[in-house]
Amino acid sequence: MTDNIMREPSETLRSVSSQRLEAQWVVGFVDGEGCFYVGINLQPEMKVGYQVLPEFTVVQHERDIQLLYALKQFFGCGVVRSNHAERMAYRVRGTRHLRERILPFFEMHPLKSKKRQDFLKFRRILLLMERGEHLTTEGVERIRAIASKMNTGRER
Amino acid sequence: MTDNIMREPSETLRSVSSQRLEAQWVVGFVDGEGCFYVGINLQPEMKVGYQVLPEFTVVQHERDIQLLYALKQFFGCGVVRSNHAERMAYRVRGTRHLRERILPFFEMHPLKSKKRQDFLKFRRILLLMERGEHLTTEGVERIRAIASKMNTGRER
Repeated sequence: MTDNIMREPSETLRSVSSQRLEAQWVVGFVDGEGCFYVGINLQPEMKVGYQVLPEFTVVQHERDIQLLYALKQFFGCGVVRSNHAERMAYRVRGTRHLRERILPFFEMHPLKSKKRQDFLKFRRILLLMERGEHLTTEGVERIRAIASKMNTGRER
Repeated sequence: MTDNIMREPSETLRSVSSQRLEAQWVVGFVDGEGCFYVGINLQPEMKVGYQVLPEFTVVQHERDIQLLYALKQFFGCGVVRSNHAERMAYRVRGTRHLRERILPFFEMHPLKSKKRQDFLKFRRILLLMERGEHLTTEGVERIRAIASKMNTGRER
């Protein structure tokens, strides 16, 4: 057996186990399945009484869990967790990862669906948080006003 | 005003009104939102008693109807129709369009999700139909057996 023949199977395996995604595929898939969400939760331990929790998620039936891992690899951040029933989610919550990985990608590769409007509000909120506005009562109200206009026009 | 300045607004309008889609965006969007389906309906007027109806659909909230028209333009076939409630569907039913437009595209640009398995069964059924197998009782049973294994592992 030559070295070349020895090498073939492992390369085949590698291409099967880690799908390489193209930017436009990611945009199309997120236009369909992605969600930009900002939770505002009661949090008595914080001075303003609320915690602002932005997250980017892509939910998928567990049969396609490999795509969620491919997204995790593509963005270089986030986690894959079970969602509910047979559904899994790829999720990015850290504001630094959201600001440094998720925002620049969708700024450079705009979503084509109305989900882009949600993304732009999500971005505004992350920029307000970068300035510390989520730590003031006025800032939280401002964020709440923006968040309340996100994810409308979907199935409830 | 120079010609250049005159030309600008109309070009801006054009790019807004007819979104040009890239192949990988279409693959990603269909991985999320597309459906390959083969209906087998009682049809007493036909000799074998059944009509085989393959269709490719992409369903979307009406707020993103422009994406469905962009898909119609991209594939150069199909119709955009209301689905139910506030949902609209892009749909291709004609077997010639399915064979000549839809199959070659997804053969050249493979789906990355398990929906590819549905596509491959859909393709097998269309090739059986091309040979007229849907017009014989044995052929319909063969098609029914393949179709019964499609679209499993989704929400019911």
